[in-house]
Amino acid sequence: MSLSTKVDEIPLYIKVNVQDNVAIIVNSGGLKKGTLFACGLTLKDFVPQGHKVALVDLEENQEIIRYGEVIGYAISPIKKGSWIKETLVRMPTPPKMDELPLASHSSEELTPLKGYTFEGYRNANGTAGIKNILGITTSVQCVTGVLDYSVKRIKEEILPKYPNVHDVVALNHTYGCGVAINAPEAKIPIRTIQNIATHPNFGGEAMVVGLGCEKLSPAQLGVQKDTVSLQDQAGFMPMVKIIMEMAEERLEKLNQRQRVTCPVADLVIGLQCGGSDAFSGVTANPAIGYAADLLVRAGATVMFSEVTEVRDGVHLLTPRAANEEVGRAIIQEMKWYDDYLEKGEVDRSANTTPGNKKGGLANIVEKSLGSIVKSGSTKITGVVGPGEKANEKGLLFAATPASDFVCGTLQLAAGMHLQVFATGRGTPYALAAAPVIKVSSRTALLEQWSDLIDVNAGTIATGEATIEDVGWELFHFIIDVASGRKQTWTEKWGICNDLSLFNPAPVT
Amino acid sequence: MSLSTKVDEIPLYIKVNVQDNVAIIVNSGGLKKGTLFACGLTLKDFVPQGHKVALVDLEENQEIIRYGEVIGYAISPIKKGSWIKETLVRMPTPPKMDELPLASHSSEELTPLKGYTFEGYRNANGTAGIKNILGITTSVQCVTGVLDYSVKRIKEEILPKYPNVHDVVALNHTYGCGVAINAPEAKIPIRTIQNIATHPNFGGEAMVVGLGCEKLSPAQLGVQKDTVSLQDQAGFMPMVKIIMEMAEERLEKLNQRQRVTCPVADLVIGLQCGGSDAFSGVTANPAIGYAADLLVRAGATVMFSEVTEVRDGVHLLTPRAANEEVGRAIIQEMKWYDDYLEKGEVDRSANTTPGNKKGGLANIVEKSLGSIVKSGSTKITGVVGPGEKANEKGLLFAATPASDFVCGTLQLAAGMHLQVFATGRGTPYALAAAPVIKVSSRTALLEQWSDLIDVNAGTIATGEATIEDVGWELFHFIIDVASGRKQTWTEKWGICNDLSLFNPAPVT
Ligand SMILES: [Ca+2]
Ligand SMILES: [Ca+2]
Ligand SMILES: [Ca+2]
Ligand SMILES: [Ca+2]
Ligand SMILES: [Ca+2]
Repeated sequence: MSLSTKVDEIPLYIKVNVQDNVAIIVNSGGLKKGTLFACGLTLKDFVPQGHKVALVDLEENQEIIRYGEVIGYAISPIKKGSWIKETLVRMPTPPKMDELPLASHSSEELTPLKGYTFEGYRNANGTAGIKNILGITTSVQCVTGVLDYSVKRIKEEILPKYPNVHDVVALNHTYGCGVAINAPEAKIPIRTIQNIATHPNFGGEAMVVGLGCEKLSPAQLGVQKDTVSLQDQAGFMPMVKIIMEMAEERLEKLNQRQRVTCPVADLVIGLQCGGSDAFSGVTANPAIGYAADLLVRAGATVMFSEVTEVRDGVHLLTPRAANEEVGRAIIQEMKWYDDYLEKGEVDRSANTTPGNKKGGLANIVEKSLGSIVKSGSTKITGVVGPGEKANEKGLLFAATPASDFVCGTLQLAAGMHLQVFATGRGTPYALAAAPVIKVSSRTALLEQWSDLIDVNAGTIATGEATIEDVGWELFHFIIDVASGRKQTWTEKWGICNDLSLFNPAPVT
Repeated sequence: MSLSTKVDEIPLYIKVNVQDNVAIIVNSGGLKKGTLFACGLTLKDFVPQGHKVALVDLEENQEIIRYGEVIGYAISPIKKGSWIKETLVRMPTPPKMDELPLASHSSEELTPLKGYTFEGYRNANGTAGIKNILGITTSVQCVTGVLDYSVKRIKEEILPKYPNVHDVVALNHTYGCGVAINAPEAKIPIRTIQNIATHPNFGGEAMVVGLGCEKLSPAQLGVQKDTVSLQDQAGFMPMVKIIMEMAEERLEKLNQRQRVTCPVADLVIGLQCGGSDAFSGVTANPAIGYAADLLVRAGATVMFSEVTEVRDGVHLLTPRAANEEVGRAIIQEMKWYDDYLEKGEVDRSANTTPGNKKGGLANIVEKSLGSIVKSGSTKITGVVGPGEKANEKGLLFAATPASDFVCGTLQLAAGMHLQVFATGRGTPYALAAAPVIKVSSRTALLEQWSDLIDVNAGTIATGEATIEDVGWELFHFIIDVASGRKQTWTEKWGICNDLSLFNPAPVT
């Protein structure tokens, strides 16, 4: 009998916040009327898995509180122990974009968390890296074939001579030519490539492979002297030769680097979720939120993202802004995305789907809360536009699409060392330039994918661990991975996805 | 002394069409006033390379004819032998989109070209392939890491046992999830993936790797029974195992296939250009146009594309439409692209740039003509929307962006066996699923990139060969590559670009 089956026998619910007056049923298949919980609560109805049960008697129009926030109002009185069906919940009227409360939370200062360090690589510009990688930037997709061929040979013939270097990564993408380079939104893919070229895990050894007649000039990437232009070479073999030579020069330098003790404050951690299920918002994301608070308390930079997943909870984000300017910047990014979607003639994608409702999410506010919870409870100290570099400490909102690959690429551009990724249904997604820690929302996923899941938050649902327990486990695992003492599964297997640039401008 | 330097000593011009009253100066650095040509023409001015010289005395308002078409009118009288500067040319008023002549060319029927065959692979559905490849489709980008790992092992451990199979290709792309799958324009990337999955070079052995919770379901790709879903597997190693097993089943079948003699009418050839220079429109593209006519006369399907490169010559395309319906379909695709660019707030990208004018192109009509000339002189028998399959014989307009990778990907979706690619400045671009024949516009490029250029059209500029000569050479080379008797350089090196889907809809 597997662990997940065994715990299924005990009736369990999850209450996320002390203020919550509802909780979520954990057991697969749901729980029948009359079920008695250890706390004394008895179910008045059958309640499906992932759906809400009333923890107190709710009067008509009483606030229904989940994640410590109002997710709606009782349409009629709801007795303690009843199933809170979607039809019993009246949605809160979302405040208008220009009437949102800015920086209104009088959040107490968090206790600083001192003395935590990791073993990283100090860069000349003062930043630290957690990997020692040669990243080879491309100014246009034309060069992909030649570069992939060259990188394969570099890895086979040269890299083994430089054992302190972890990898050689071709930063291939589909931008650079055949694109509307003067379109207003072209700035997004361009700065993304620029910022990834100087990623802290690349140790300051920039190298660019370009063609020569592309629209995106290597000069625009700010690394012209480290550029090889294929149109200047006398054929394919000379192209490969010069790329291999330039790479070896840089590998020699990178190989000299040694890990040194760095404060956790030097870390830039990205957060996202993908392949989510009903438990992502109550296990993995809250544990990530707890770890995010620990990181922020230790002085690190933590980014949460995925505009379309948090958009409908914007009124819960703006009060957390550290000041009004940050609050306005959050709103501006949300508005930009609304316009972007409207041009493509699509509805707000964050609207709940029939699948969401079947899974127990009453409305878009509740859905967004499950995603926002991974941002923890600290103030939002800054906003990073898509493709921009993160230049502040603390919790930042990095405005990106929710697409795992696009979000990953943009968080890399922001300077992310390592990504923490919550998943319910599972995905083997990974990045070449930064480790991705997979946090499972259910123990069943860990059991199924024992060679892909790094941290299991499913134990929160079964009461075997608390949010704090898993949050601390994750915090320590982040430090171990950053220090090279532990590897994520996808690092062990050496698998990754390609970069996926966000280009809201047309191709030509 | 190189060939290109040697021929530079003889004064040369190029006249493309018998009706032309202007010609283009070939010599690098241009030719000085007083230069005497073999035909007796004497230059009245210095004329820069790539610029036009008057072959006859032109009266005020007289038509200036190049490529057999009116590219403008003389603003003042121009003497024979004079430099026709851009300022001497009044642009023809472009007809309005709703006033274009449709199917008005009374083009004489071309003599059918009989008896030409190639050695191809006959598919069960009646089509033929020119390669014997296992193509592994993906329904979402999540699977890339696992699939790349698996394909590497398949190529090392399994493929050598099946010597009649040329390659195993992972059809990675950035679509499938994190995208607005219900947006009106989502149909373009979806049908592109669908149609590439069943490409004729894949021998009917479909195979799809999906995740399980992606928005683009493998069922939508029409190949559900051949799908492996990673979320159904018990971890990474089982994923790799099942992919390798499914691949081997298909490799066994593909390995049984033998080349058989097929009529050239079974070929589907794509045309495009990239990294163009002033000679692309007078050497490589006209030679390709001649070969296109030969292929059409032999009953093949030939596609020309690149909306933004031909858009401003639309009034020269609609008269060539085989019927009014085809003419209207051409206009519709152009209008769609105009709207698409406008949404991205960009000007018509086909407008001549300062660089174009410096290179001798007086206006957008002249520029488009240089690109359109690769479509040859036959009637346009059909229009293929982006991502659609080509279902007709003859010359088709496949509406795609000009981006080499996006055009290549969409022509693959249309069923292209092989692409003919004109280049002036050179690019190592290639595709994994179909050979790309590189045609150089200048002999200097062949000399520089002797291990990447397959056919040289630069000899047309120097008078060493005619357009007909190079056109026939290319026609025979296409048949040899299609038959596996010859390889393109990029096939020899085994280099290629990734697919680049055209997704005009938003990401989410
Ligand atoms: Ca998500
Ligand atoms: Ca995501
Ligand atoms: Ca072109
Ligand atoms: Ca092109
Ligand atoms: Ca790749």
